[in-house]
Amino acid sequence: MKKNKDFDFIRADRTVDHRSLGKLLSEIENDRDRAEEILADHYDDSDTVQVVGITGSPGAGKSTLADGIIGKLREEGKIVAVVAVDPSSPFTGGAILGDRIRMSAHAEDPGVFIRSMASRGSLGGLAPATFDVVNLLRSAGFDAIIVETVGVGQSEIDVLAVADTVLLALVPGLGDDVQALKAGIMEIADIFVVNKSDREGKERLIAEIRMVLDLNRERFSWLPPIVETVATERRGIDDLMQQIGAHAAYVREHRIAVRSVRIARQLEKMAADKVGRQVYAALGGKAFFERESAAVASGDENPYRIVKKIEKLITTRTEEQS
Amino acid sequence: MKKNKDFDFIRADRTVDHRSLGKLLSEIENDRDRAEEILADHYDDSDTVQVVGITGSPGAGKSTLADGIIGKLREEGKIVAVVAVDPSSPFTGGAILGDRIRMSAHAEDPGVFIRSMASRGSLGGLAPATFDVVNLLRSAGFDAIIVETVGVGQSEIDVLAVADTVLLALVPGLGDDVQALKAGIMEIADIFVVNKSDREGKERLIAEIRMVLDLNRERFSWLPPIVETVATERRGIDDLMQQIGAHAAYVREHRIAVRSVRIARQLEKMAADKVGRQVYAALGGKAFFERESAAVASGDENPYRIVKKIEKLITTRTEEQS
Repeated sequence: MKKNKDFDFIRADRTVDHRSLGKLLSEIENDRDRAEEILADHYDDSDTVQVVGITGSPGAGKSTLADGIIGKLREEGKIVAVVAVDPSSPFTGGAILGDRIRMSAHAEDPGVFIRSMASRGSLGGLAPATFDVVNLLRSAGFDAIIVETVGVGQSEIDVLAVADTVLLALVPGLGDDVQALKAGIMEIADIFVVNKSDREGKERLIAEIRMVLDLNRERFSWLPPIVETVATERRGIDDLMQQIGAHAAYVREHRIAVRSVRIARQLEKMAADKVGRQVYAALGGKAFFERESAAVASGDENPYRIVKKIEKLITTRTEEQS
Repeated sequence: MKKNKDFDFIRADRTVDHRSLGKLLSEIENDRDRAEEILADHYDDSDTVQVVGITGSPGAGKSTLADGIIGKLREEGKIVAVVAVDPSSPFTGGAILGDRIRMSAHAEDPGVFIRSMASRGSLGGLAPATFDVVNLLRSAGFDAIIVETVGVGQSEIDVLAVADTVLLALVPGLGDDVQALKAGIMEIADIFVVNKSDREGKERLIAEIRMVLDLNRERFSWLPPIVETVATERRGIDDLMQQIGAHAAYVREHRIAVRSVRIARQLEKMAADKVGRQVYAALGGKAFFERESAAVASGDENPYRIVKKIEKLITTRTEEQS
């Protein structure tokens, strides 16, 4: 698929056309059908852009790591897009993420484009609007894209299906739950970053990661390296960049195998979202769910009988019949 | 809806029939259609059982809090079910959660039933099997049910739609990200638990929570209280139990309004899951996604064109036409 010339948001002077790009992204976030139309034409999953996902437990210093990586990419003259994915609700919403973005060392850099968005969807759970935004940025002329998640739950794991290289940031001495947390995300981590590695408990954390990796060694064709950083002091960022580069080379070499897995994950979510929206609209949207829930709450209905009712409203053809 | 006498898993001597119940739960986890059949008949959302959800950042001490609550419930002679929801992958999977469960102070108590399950679904994201399991436990004769999540992402927020009372556990001094983390979950938290409240930073954390609550005061008919605990030393658990009781009374009083909201959230997920499974099967399951992803990876296809193709395979009728 060839990149469309109209679809370049990087100016001749190597600065981002923030205004046009921001407008387009708002458009596709608000009109999912339009997003699909644009991306059916402009999808470009070539090797020229590396999408780096950063996830990890709260307090792991993901934003500081992102800042460090952006700094290095900028030194190399690269144009960078950052997508910060917020598990936010309409409740306290974007304000907090907005603050974080304003605090970024690169917020004012004309060669960096920063976008925050909510991970929350309607029917179907995850908003693959994240996929659309990142896939659109892939085609928009950037050299690198960083996707930073706030939490480390299932939605965040899902979001990272859009990344080529996933960094999992961990911090020594955060307690038992970190162990459990790692379980959900281990299989998608390409690089482990032990951040705040000047803290007590570093050796233990690294040993724990090693153990899990060793136990599952046969599952890997790329064995995730462990990089130690102190992101606030920019320590270890060079090592990290080297590993990010090494992983990019690995992905290029095993392109079809690596991408197939990643795209299958995206496609499932995209399909679920598409179908969910279709069915949601067909049922009558929010009003339907409010009416039926009130009936359940007052004891007149039962959610499982309602689901049966919904099932009957949908007909699927198999691919062969279509 | 009347509770079925056949459907009681609490023996006359007030112990749980672990074997029969465990078998039934495995059955409904593996056969979602069967789950729906059973629950279409046995769903019982009456006031007699309180479902308490516990969520919070990693290291917040959720398991220890759960242990403390279970201890108090047992002192009152109550029969308790615990559902631990794991964001686990097939990768390191249940082993870690299994460890946590074995470590529970109540693992050997015949009046406590503990079940761990994955939050991960297939097409559709979240497995509302969690809903099925908790809804089934509601009808199974228990006095109280505790649902503990591991992470605090969107899936975990979704899972907690099944709870009557949601506790959000936070810990002083975990850093900036906690702020962002709270955003996603604030609107569903009924009680804030500041655990490890002997740590530095407690006042600041409480002030932050207060600020967000105050800013959104008009949204609440129940203003979430903030309870301080040191769960490892069982400090503050009595206060917490009192607030859990107060919230139960509030839910009873505003039954239809409170439950409508909660059930609407469940119903959306259940519908999405049902529809997702139908469509997934109609497409040909995993093989379809593997084939199409390989086509995308090799540059022959484009995920957005595939989604359009999927869309055409589904026909929805509106409720009125059905």
